[in-house]
Amino acid sequence: MYFGAIEAGGTKFVCAVSNEQLEIISRVSIPTTSPAATLEGVFEFFDSYELSSIGIGSFGPIDINKQSKTYGYITSTPKPGWDYFNFVGAIKSRYHVPVAFTTDVNAAAYGEFKQGSAVGSSSCLYLTIGTGIGGGAVVNGEILEGFSHPEMGHLLVRKHPEDQYEGHCPYHKDCFEGLAAGPALEGRYGINGRELASNEKVWEMEASYIAQALVNYTLILRPEKIILGGGVMKQTQLFPLIRAAFAALLNNYVETPELNDYIVSPGFGDNAGIMGSLLLARETHGSVID
Amino acid sequence: MYFGAIEAGGTKFVCAVSNEQLEIISRVSIPTTSPAATLEGVFEFFDSYELSSIGIGSFGPIDINKQSKTYGYITSTPKPGWDYFNFVGAIKSRYHVPVAFTTDVNAAAYGEFKQGSAVGSSSCLYLTIGTGIGGGAVVNGEILEGFSHPEMGHLLVRKHPEDQYEGHCPYHKDCFEGLAAGPALEGRYGINGRELASNEKVWEMEASYIAQALVNYTLILRPEKIILGGGVMKQTQLFPLIRAAFAALLNNYVETPELNDYIVSPGFGDNAGIMGSLLLARETHGSVID
Repeated sequence: MYFGAIEAGGTKFVCAVSNEQLEIISRVSIPTTSPAATLEGVFEFFDSYELSSIGIGSFGPIDINKQSKTYGYITSTPKPGWDYFNFVGAIKSRYHVPVAFTTDVNAAAYGEFKQGSAVGSSSCLYLTIGTGIGGGAVVNGEILEGFSHPEMGHLLVRKHPEDQYEGHCPYHKDCFEGLAAGPALEGRYGINGRELASNEKVWEMEASYIAQALVNYTLILRPEKIILGGGVMKQTQLFPLIRAAFAALLNNYVETPELNDYIVSPGFGDNAGIMGSLLLARETHGSVID
Repeated sequence: MYFGAIEAGGTKFVCAVSNEQLEIISRVSIPTTSPAATLEGVFEFFDSYELSSIGIGSFGPIDINKQSKTYGYITSTPKPGWDYFNFVGAIKSRYHVPVAFTTDVNAAAYGEFKQGSAVGSSSCLYLTIGTGIGGGAVVNGEILEGFSHPEMGHLLVRKHPEDQYEGHCPYHKDCFEGLAAGPALEGRYGINGRELASNEKVWEMEASYIAQALVNYTLILRPEKIILGGGVMKQTQLFPLIRAAFAALLNNYVETPELNDYIVSPGFGDNAGIMGSLLLARETHGSVID
């Protein structure tokens, strides 16, 4: 039996096929262009397998409400061609198998929860900090959903007193994403974040924003584990800075796991999303195809 | 069959007994003094009934981890005599019935979810704004818990540009509770909030802080309903101000229910906590007494 997974990102689609034990037997990376061209690549890859089910972790916003007429769609994205694209519909009409559909960060949170850094917990938070900032969470063993999926990157945060940068979020200017995603580093200093690696001040400010957001996530969700992924977190010098700033801000108000075990890297590294999508595929296998 | 409920607050304990239909047949309010004297009042009230189970919504912090040695305790409260008081143990050793134990705000959230303002949803948030600020939530039909219960009142918020008040939170000074709970109104203006009812500026600033917190709760939890209770929210002129400030801050970034249906009063008014505790009592009835 084979399971299929798609981690659908704004720049690339990663597709994988696994066996029943979720061992990946083949994978491919397809540049995200138009829906038609991108899906053609996906179909070409999946067509060689008899898939039992497919899990999708997608860039958003997406419609995850099964009662909605636009369930399974990517909704109001500014990405040309993709707004109101019926993603699940396109996959189902090709393969006629059950499809699980959630956000890329929910899939990553679920992968880490089931088999990665958060194994043994009943809750976790996965945050990606890269070109954008997004978060997904598991609460009481289930993916956190409500009216729709979270959009945790846009928290309102306090401006660092030495920060002159106005923020780049088109909706909120200086929200968390507007001040701390990759483009903010470039916008503030005029050069790419990777070229700032040795500049301590840069990472102290970055850590102070991340820590603020983590304090708020902690007070609201009380997750057992916070997992930080994405391109900016490749700057691993951030981890101790974030933990120190977090401890200072929280000021022992609530108990957390020991911070080295609480604020951690993904167990699956860059594979958290694809592993979560495979896990969701396996769980949806056997369900009714509607 | 009778169910018992305790809404254990820092100033009073409200106890109630209901029939199987959760109709309250008797209730009493007992001032919170020492644990021994307060429990004596609770026992005197409950002793007249053959209770099948008891639900408790307690002031905190409390230990809700059933694997913990201090499960059922009120933990590190500054309230004299109550720190590390074995609340569930005291009740169980008297009545030998199943006891459900959660925070006062979790109980209120659950009451509103099951039978109050959030009926028909799978998620909601209940926030009380009074002497302190606390929040509880229901996610995918279950009370939100993780490493422990939420402490949503202490979110880090942005200071209002015209606010000279330093905040009264002993842990964080100018967190949400430090700037927006009842004592902040008194600390900022020198008179009790109730005497400020006609001062529009006061409520605009108050609403701006509440709206900030609601934006962050919304982005993280995406609840289907936000229910605002507590003494400060008796100033019902706050509701339209909060909705307007919320809309301006969120700037249509994510969809929410129509704001008049989203940011609402408790369906049970001041009874949300006791009704939630009765519901939890009924659900725990029949479970094993450990």
